Order: sequence, then structure tokens, then C-alpha cells
Amino acid sequence: MRICFVGDSFVNGTGDPECLGWTGRICVAAQKQGYDVTYYNLGVRRETSADIKARWLQEVSCRLSKDYDGRIVFSFGTNDTTIETDKTRIKFVESIENARQILQVAKQRFPVLMVGAPPMLDTEQNSRTVCLLKQFEQICLTIDIPYLDIFATLQKSDTWLQEVADYDGAHPRAAGYQEIANLVQNWSGWQSWLT
Amino acid sequence: MRICFVGDSFVNGTGDPECLGWTGRICVAAQKQGYDVTYYNLGVRRETSADIKARWLQEVSCRLSKDYDGRIVFSFGTNDTTIETDKTRIKFVESIENARQILQVAKQRFPVLMVGAPPMLDTEQNSRTVCLLKQFEQICLTIDIPYLDIFATLQKSDTWLQEVADYDGAHPRAAGYQEIANLVQNWSGWQSWLT
Repeated sequence: MRICFVGDSFVNGTGDPECLGWTGRICVAAQKQGYDVTYYNLGVRRETSADIKARWLQEVSCRLSKDYDGRIVFSFGTNDTTIETDKTRIKFVESIENARQILQVAKQRFPVLMVGAPPMLDTEQNSRTVCLLKQFEQICLTIDIPYLDIFATLQKSDTWLQEVADYDGAHPRAAGYQEIANLVQNWSGWQSWLT
Repeated sequence: MRICFVGDSFVNGTGDPECLGWTGRICVAAQKQGYDVTYYNLGVRRETSADIKARWLQEVSCRLSKDYDGRIVFSFGTNDTTIETDKTRIKFVESIENARQILQVAKQRFPVLMVGAPPMLDTEQNSRTVCLLKQFEQICLTIDIPYLDIFATLQKSDTWLQEVADYDGAHPRAAGYQEIANLVQNWSGWQSWLT
């Protein structure tokens, strides 16, 4: 199985001193269970849904094929809701349209999962992100892509909040990424790929 | 510092149950030394110099900028020398021209290092790969890119040869990738980025 993880800095694992992030951690765990996983990390810092829309298909196409059981996990959204020069980097309706287009095209080609975005320290941005994630979840429901919310659990996690506060206000360190990895590994969507 | 590692399955770390490969291992070590490294792994299985020439600039451009101290490490060559339908996948002169073009363009934009390719079990392919790597080394010398040979050392490494033999004849497991990581970490080219 060859898996492309497509998204932003949280997919890249920015801040993790072990250079795995949650994506690498769940692939290591899958390999320990005996699954032969090729791990392609396509998370890019600062990227919005518009940036991802512009590159994901080309990057995935040279890495995956149906012959080698290619699959995609998406996770993005936080950078869309960042304020720059008095407005969000991406308009709310555009973010929704970008996500819909990305997910619809992806779903026609490969099995797809979507993992939501985590909370940051900025409560106002968090409110905007939660609104956007609800729309992403609805899109996934409509086109039959399993979606995992991680925001609610992490917002109550002392480990997550403390690591984010101690680092840069956005990204955790090893333990925080392990928390996301645990959520994904206990999720039926991910588990269905490993049976 | 943000580093793109561009190449083939050996850059991807295929076969490593720890999902780090040599590229992840040297970035983990750099982080432990206190360097703030963003790790972008752009290794793709089966890719030749022609495949890499077609995608590297676009993939690197959305990940690196001069504002964030972007750097590139290339490593490829083995797939060029694989025989398919009675000839190598890429003609010898074309491999050389691809490498020259990739490295020249990269060097104009970012600091660049090149790491050679490792040996496989196939001795005839190894001979072809060694010939090609000598040319790559010459190109690097001409355009002033530090080049590290790893082939000769690994060919004498029991750990490397045993892991490759036990796995798929081409890729090692964790200990083999750690051997490459050790060679790179002890190399003045890499060390010059961490001082």
C-alpha cells in the first residue's frame, strides 16, 4: 500500500524533533503490525486549500497508481482562516469550494480519508477553523469520504495545549503529534485500510 | 532551515520500518543538535533522472524560498541503469545530461548537495551504476556542488548487504539506512550546513 498524506504543516510534522509527525507515526505502527506501507509525506508549511488544490494531483500522480494500491489522506484548513491584512487568507466560500473540488477529484481516483485540523492558541482563529471544518465534514459526508474530527479532543488535551504554547503557538512537539496519531489509529476509517 | 531531499526510493526510505530513511535520520540528529530543520522528503520510488528532471523544480518551489533558508539534497541514479526490454531505462548520455541540467538549475537557486547511490545485489547493474556515478561526481566537481560517494563503503558493509539480501535485493532496513546516515553526518558537505 502506498499512501500520500497531503496537507499543511501539521501533515509535515513541523515542530516534531523525531521528524515523523502523526503521519509517520501511524505508518510506523502499521509496519509494526506487518503492513507493507510506502509513506509519502506531502505536507507543506503555510499552505491553504488553494495552494493544495494547485499541486496535489500532480504530486500524487507520480507517486501513486492503481497497480500499487495507492491511497490518499488529506488534512488542511487552518491556514485558510489566518487573518492577513484584515481578512482571512482564503474566503470562507472559496475554502469550501476548494475542498469540494479536491475531494471529489481524489475520490474518483483513489480511496480517500480526511482528517480535520487541530486547535491553535488563538481562540478567534479557532472559532473560524471550527466553522470551516464543519463544512469540510459535510462535504465528506455527501461524497462518502470518512472524516475524522480531532479538534474537539485536542482542545481538551493538556499535552497538546502545553506543547503548542511552549513551541510556537500553533505546532506541538512529539507528544502532541502522538496524540493525533492515537486518534487516527483508533478511527474506523484508518482501521478499515489495515484489515 | 528548510531542506528538500529529492530523489528515488532510497531517498524515500523504502523498506525502513521506522519510516525515516537516511534523510529523516540526519534531520533528527540535526534537531537533537539544536538546529531548526523543516524536513521535506521528495523521494519517489522507481524514478529515474528523467522523472526527477520533470518534477523537482515545481515541487521544490512551493516548499522552499530564500526567506526561509531553503536547501536541496539530491540523490538518484540507480533506476537509470535498470535493464528493461534489453536496454537501460535511460541512455547513459541522457542520464548525464539530465543530472547536469537539474544540478545547474538548482545551484542557481539554493545551496545544493549531492549524495551518490548505494549498491544493490545485482553486480552487472552495480557496474553500470558506478560508471554513471563517476560522471555525476564530475558534474558536481565542475559546477562546485559537494558530492558524497556512498557506494564504495556500503559495498564492503556486511550490514548493508545482508539487509538488502533479506529484503528485496535493492533496499535495506533500519540499520542499512543508519549506515548511509552515518556517512552523510560525517561528511564535510553536510556538516558545513550545520555550523
